[in-house]
Amino acid sequence: MAFGWIDEQAELRRRANLVRTLRPRPADSPLLDLASNDYLGLARHPEVTEGAARAARTWGGGATGSRLVTGTTELHAELERELADFCGFEAALVFSSGYAANLAAVATLGPHGSLIVSDAGNHASLIDGCRLARGARQVVGHADPEAVRKALRTHEGPAVVVSDTVFSVDGDAAPLAELAAACRERGAGLLVDDAHGLGVLGDGGRGAAQAAGLAGADDLVVTVTLSKSLGSQGGAVLGPARVIDHLVNAARTFIFDTGLAPAAAGAALAALRLLRREPQRAARARTVATDLYARLTAAGHQAVRPDAAVVSVRAPSPEQAVTWAAHCRTAGLAVGCFRPPSVPDGISRLRLTARADLTGAEIERAVLLIGETRP
Amino acid sequence: MAFGWIDEQAELRRRANLVRTLRPRPADSPLLDLASNDYLGLARHPEVTEGAARAARTWGGGATGSRLVTGTTELHAELERELADFCGFEAALVFSSGYAANLAAVATLGPHGSLIVSDAGNHASLIDGCRLARGARQVVGHADPEAVRKALRTHEGPAVVVSDTVFSVDGDAAPLAELAAACRERGAGLLVDDAHGLGVLGDGGRGAAQAAGLAGADDLVVTVTLSKSLGSQGGAVLGPARVIDHLVNAARTFIFDTGLAPAAAGAALAALRLLRREPQRAARARTVATDLYARLTAAGHQAVRPDAAVVSVRAPSPEQAVTWAAHCRTAGLAVGCFRPPSVPDGISRLRLTARADLTGAEIERAVLLIGETRP
Ligand SMILES: Cc1ncc(COP(=O)(O)O)c(C=O)c1O
Ligand SMILES: Cc1ncc(COP(=O)(O)O)c(C=O)c1O
Repeated sequence: MAFGWIDEQAELRRRANLVRTLRPRPADSPLLDLASNDYLGLARHPEVTEGAARAARTWGGGATGSRLVTGTTELHAELERELADFCGFEAALVFSSGYAANLAAVATLGPHGSLIVSDAGNHASLIDGCRLARGARQVVGHADPEAVRKALRTHEGPAVVVSDTVFSVDGDAAPLAELAAACRERGAGLLVDDAHGLGVLGDGGRGAAQAAGLAGADDLVVTVTLSKSLGSQGGAVLGPARVIDHLVNAARTFIFDTGLAPAAAGAALAALRLLRREPQRAARARTVATDLYARLTAAGHQAVRPDAAVVSVRAPSPEQAVTWAAHCRTAGLAVGCFRPPSVPDGISRLRLTARADLTGAEIERAVLLIGETRP
Repeated sequence: MAFGWIDEQAELRRRANLVRTLRPRPADSPLLDLASNDYLGLARHPEVTEGAARAARTWGGGATGSRLVTGTTELHAELERELADFCGFEAALVFSSGYAANLAAVATLGPHGSLIVSDAGNHASLIDGCRLARGARQVVGHADPEAVRKALRTHEGPAVVVSDTVFSVDGDAAPLAELAAACRERGAGLLVDDAHGLGVLGDGGRGAAQAAGLAGADDLVVTVTLSKSLGSQGGAVLGPARVIDHLVNAARTFIFDTGLAPAAAGAALAALRLLRREPQRAARARTVATDLYARLTAAGHQAVRPDAAVVSVRAPSPEQAVTWAAHCRTAGLAVGCFRPPSVPDGISRLRLTARADLTGAEIERAVLLIGETRP
């Protein structure tokens, strides 16, 4: 029978206790949220939701076509200008998602004859970008500039080094300055995904590149998402104008995709302006993360010191990670849970996100519940 | 220098006159629009834009996380139920774009050891899906069920045949019933992308599968986009519940992507309900296309008889296609333009889209302007 193999796989998943199910949430969930990526607490901010509503009314429900045909509105252009300016880059290009931006950046900047050096801990979208790219790929050990150097020495032609800035599972930061130095030694480009850095790292949330003093460098390309700190949907590539022009001409997930919906562009723009006005939100997200980490560690949990707003807590086993997260939920706390096969290192953990708008009392309650439900 | 090769490619593009540029449009463009994919004219419909605005206010600017963590709201579930019900399928799964839905469907339904048979005219997102898939790929001639049969005979294990229902460049329809028959002979699955069929083909716009009497078949999976007839953004996969469950568990562009923004889900849901109430919109889009085709042919243009709402008009050369489209624009008419390398067959054409809300006078004006600007 067609698709018959699916039932076998479903059975394997059931036996391994790995079945994933969707849990639709209500508009006003009673759960304390330490699971979303709404790092600055802006997704529900009235200025952001009004930005979405106003944009939909002014520009319509959708962009109506590819960005190259009818899908570029003046709103898209405005968002691109302000994003580039905020993060300190010459130009920006907005995509329908961060995933699409990453596919575009890697596939387009790793052409035939080039070498792509990719960190073993990179996000799925960067990995898929490598698979779409025509260049050769070398995967190197996690956060290891020496391994990057070694890989770059194996290749003559153009090369690009690809890394998350903040790794989404453990929340640890990439050694950006060292990666940039390794790239410069060989004239290689550096492409980093700042999905979890924008809004959290750098002055007022200008991102990991700005924090490392690299923003605007002519050998650096940064991707960001509008779906985390900016509380919306979409993604963008930031970089030199010549790179952005190249993407306009060559990136398949740009050319053959409908433009980002005006409401998403409007929400992201409103969030960006809010962040400019209230730069302390970025520092607050980092403080909440550090505070959360300190309290968890004091309570005897094994956590990874957070470099941004993600706090990872070790669980004893995959089964216990799942039970732990489920018990948290029952107790009123939403946390993320990573376990094999979603994590390449085989380590199961809870994933907590530090929102800038969490109060001290909420942090305390979260730590208490995590302790009480510990397997 | 890093990314130095980009300048060489830019120079080649300049010399070949193939440079693409973005033209941001104002909210109220004076152009007569025959370029967008807003087939039913719903993107600016007040019910649709209010659907977006209300959803943003109720649910926030973004979904805040992966659909598997915090990114599934009751609104997403509602949209999935109504989409599946409208199109006649057991279940539906919503993605952040049609592109992401296609990547997911092909990559997940063409696993290691399987054969993917792909029409040579398929959309970029299906082609990229093939490249992400672990299965072997065979590209077959355009709209050729015999070639599909032959390809299927070369393989023993699971197989899936992948095709657009309506090809986006020429607007011609795939021979769905024959493809389905070829698949059934071999127990292969059929996966079709109804991006340009939903809202236009079938009873009241229920899509190409319903029109072919295939909706809900257990060996058929259909992808749709929310960004064309439904005037929003996003995509969906429709099919048997077991296939949808498999996607939830295995599709990378589902698992590792932020959920569709509530505003986009709200706009699509409003458009779907409108279409249910006003089913004549679908037939009207087809009538406008046929009318446009008849008038263009009568005026001596070489056009492809439209099977849905896309009308393709041959241009004498790539250069003249570009000039023609530019002159149309100057005269107040927006049309699409396809030329190499965007078209695999090397044929340059104007691409016109028939919106259901075009008046007879507008159609007449469009045909007149196309004639006057003909190179
Ligand atoms: C590191 C990283 N990059 C890219 C993405 C994809 O961005 P988006 O969800 O906006 O498509 C995500 C998460 O979703 C991510 O965690
Ligand atoms: C045939 C086809 N499939 C898929 C897509 C991608 O859908 P979306 O633009 O909603 O991502 C498009 C166009 O954009 C298309 O024309």
